[in-house]
Amino acid sequence: MKAISIGLLGLGTVGSGVIKIIENHQDKLMHQVGCPIKVKKVLVQELGKERAVPIDPSVLTTNVDDIINNPEIDVVIEVMGGVEKTKEYLLQAIQNKKHIVTANKDLMAVYGAELLSAASTNGCDLFYEASVAGGIPIIRSLVDGLSSDRITKLMGIVNGTTNFILTKMTQEGLAYEDVLKEAQDLGYAEANPASDVEGLDAARKMVILARLGFSMEVDLDDVKATGISMVNEEDLHYAEQLGYTMKLLGIAHRDDEKVEVSVQPTLLPKAHPLSSVNNEYNAVYVYGEAVGETMFYGPGAGSLPTATSIVSDLVAVVKNMRLGINGSYAVALQHEKNLKTSEEIYSKYFLRIHAKDQVGVFSEITSVFTKYGVSFEKILQLPVKEKGLAEIVVVTHKASLKSYEEIFMQLRDLESIKEIKSAYRVEGSAYA
Amino acid sequence: MKAISIGLLGLGTVGSGVIKIIENHQDKLMHQVGCPIKVKKVLVQELGKERAVPIDPSVLTTNVDDIINNPEIDVVIEVMGGVEKTKEYLLQAIQNKKHIVTANKDLMAVYGAELLSAASTNGCDLFYEASVAGGIPIIRSLVDGLSSDRITKLMGIVNGTTNFILTKMTQEGLAYEDVLKEAQDLGYAEANPASDVEGLDAARKMVILARLGFSMEVDLDDVKATGISMVNEEDLHYAEQLGYTMKLLGIAHRDDEKVEVSVQPTLLPKAHPLSSVNNEYNAVYVYGEAVGETMFYGPGAGSLPTATSIVSDLVAVVKNMRLGINGSYAVALQHEKNLKTSEEIYSKYFLRIHAKDQVGVFSEITSVFTKYGVSFEKILQLPVKEKGLAEIVVVTHKASLKSYEEIFMQLRDLESIKEIKSAYRVEGSAYA
Repeated sequence: MKAISIGLLGLGTVGSGVIKIIENHQDKLMHQVGCPIKVKKVLVQELGKERAVPIDPSVLTTNVDDIINNPEIDVVIEVMGGVEKTKEYLLQAIQNKKHIVTANKDLMAVYGAELLSAASTNGCDLFYEASVAGGIPIIRSLVDGLSSDRITKLMGIVNGTTNFILTKMTQEGLAYEDVLKEAQDLGYAEANPASDVEGLDAARKMVILARLGFSMEVDLDDVKATGISMVNEEDLHYAEQLGYTMKLLGIAHRDDEKVEVSVQPTLLPKAHPLSSVNNEYNAVYVYGEAVGETMFYGPGAGSLPTATSIVSDLVAVVKNMRLGINGSYAVALQHEKNLKTSEEIYSKYFLRIHAKDQVGVFSEITSVFTKYGVSFEKILQLPVKEKGLAEIVVVTHKASLKSYEEIFMQLRDLESIKEIKSAYRVEGSAYA
Repeated sequence: MKAISIGLLGLGTVGSGVIKIIENHQDKLMHQVGCPIKVKKVLVQELGKERAVPIDPSVLTTNVDDIINNPEIDVVIEVMGGVEKTKEYLLQAIQNKKHIVTANKDLMAVYGAELLSAASTNGCDLFYEASVAGGIPIIRSLVDGLSSDRITKLMGIVNGTTNFILTKMTQEGLAYEDVLKEAQDLGYAEANPASDVEGLDAARKMVILARLGFSMEVDLDDVKATGISMVNEEDLHYAEQLGYTMKLLGIAHRDDEKVEVSVQPTLLPKAHPLSSVNNEYNAVYVYGEAVGETMFYGPGAGSLPTATSIVSDLVAVVKNMRLGINGSYAVALQHEKNLKTSEEIYSKYFLRIHAKDQVGVFSEITSVFTKYGVSFEKILQLPVKEKGLAEIVVVTHKASLKSYEEIFMQLRDLESIKEIKSAYRVEGSAYA
């Protein structure tokens, strides 16, 4: 029986994991797809380097054409990363009728629509489960399992580094800088952690999820991302007292036919299923009108979880090849982009304010909120921290983003307010 | 374009939900499958009865042949329940080349292998996502998403009624009987709750999950099920003190090539992701060698979540019809049944013992454990409850089920022990 030939672009930890799984599970894979799977060519930067897996040197190449223009290759697995050049490689492979499996969220967030459309035109599969929450089959669940529901909200803890940092800060009362350093020492955070801690990585994943969940075109530029570098251990302490847990949350919310996609540090009630997702774990919470609340939990990254997702996609591609139906499952996005304005984005807010400790301050603050019709759900009275200074923490009822931004600016200008120390979005259940 | 015709067996709450979803989502379904979907015939027990959904009376029938032997029906959706007669109906429908979607866990637990084999022979799809954890796409995740991994452990909170009862008992310190009554009043528990509270419902679902997860034939008779009716609020209190949460857990565990499937009240460390699954929610925790820990959370029952799963299966069937590949995805079980003996099933145990309050009792108890090489992980010293009586709670390190059973019998026979009040299995992470 003819073996299926794989070309692998990249041989880092994930690529090595893919090779290991394919070799260790030949029996099981054979049982599932009915034919052997063989890694034929692997693109590397350097031929002589020592490898994490034993590999026949003749399989390695530094010339991408040996894969993307090689008529013997059936499926290209892309684990090299990068965006522009990688896109060109994959488009070329697709034109050569090769099926694609990729783990590249940056690529899919920016060029996903273009690549999927090219794949569909050429009768090729393009699967990308590993691009979001590596070990969690969330894309498959959105495409198939929840296909008959109307999803109205997706909330994701989709970045392991920031979840590790926030968990440590919360559980051990440590400062952001100290935990970041520890995470870097442990290899959980990169030397330049900007993409993680500023929320960009999460934003890319939310674009991919929002497109699928709402069947609507969403671009990376549409996602407002705020990271965790300003989160203060004191905020976590107050959040705790009020019954909340802080998470860096990607939020994709649909009301009627308009959507909002954003990433920001967010307070969640402790009873919310996302609140107990700790350390480097990821989870995606999905609210569907019929199904109600569901959540998918698992490792967000790591070479083996990611490699497992890739091989599962590969199995799907090979099954489709044997059935002769590659490219048949791609469905174009149903809705055109329709984004909420800041007047249509509603949520609760947490504000921590340092005000002058004098008569009438609180009523002055309240009057700013009242002017915009926003009332308080919770107020925390705090002991004066330094002479003449009162610390006030409030959680509002729901307000539009626009009202909130105007309230924020007016508070900041009040003569009696010394500083707005922090402000966060607060989410509840899907209804709240 | 020719519409796909559905025959629905049963029009209870789930059946009504299916009709509602198909009608409310015609646009979305049309977009996904490329043709209209029409409910052609519905089997009911009584024609004249008032219905939860508006339905054309000419669609209703009391004659099952109008569906299973009707050449105009393409897909049969079975939501009538029952086992023997229902199996005959579905086999007949399959012989007539009709595809099947069922929510019937009792049927699938007992006749799943036979029905799947018949479907495969006849080129028919047989999908049953809704039979386990209604709103959670767990079957799809096991079949596709985790297909390239080697799953070694599945632990499930797969019965909403018992999870509701245990949650209430834990959070409010109430007795089993009182919470059961409340659950019955609220409609969460049936008047005859035996199938739920004795763990039979959970056992059926675990059979279905274990077969898929391990690709091994497992029968309902292989599952030892213990329910929650003996769980005492005092046990929950002690569990809490020791850092555990009590759940009715289905456990399917594979070591090497041997498996164990069981259902019992089990103590889990509070940090375990299953510990925060509360109320009527379900969750399935999956440990795969490559992916590590994942968990799928959502509503376990309810007419709309279950109906959503059914319609998602229907979408898959119709896509396959349009591609001409029905029946192609069924894969026979890879392994023959290979069950662990009680010498091969290992876990920790929690025991609560009432002993005589006299010198030497504890060392007498310890010596029984020591004889079997079992040591303690935790010991709780408790105030004497009544004159002359000491209460002792221990959590053991791992022991074989066989050793545990012998220890249990020997303890019971000790003259110094008045009563073993309770004993539970304790689970940790996948490794523990």
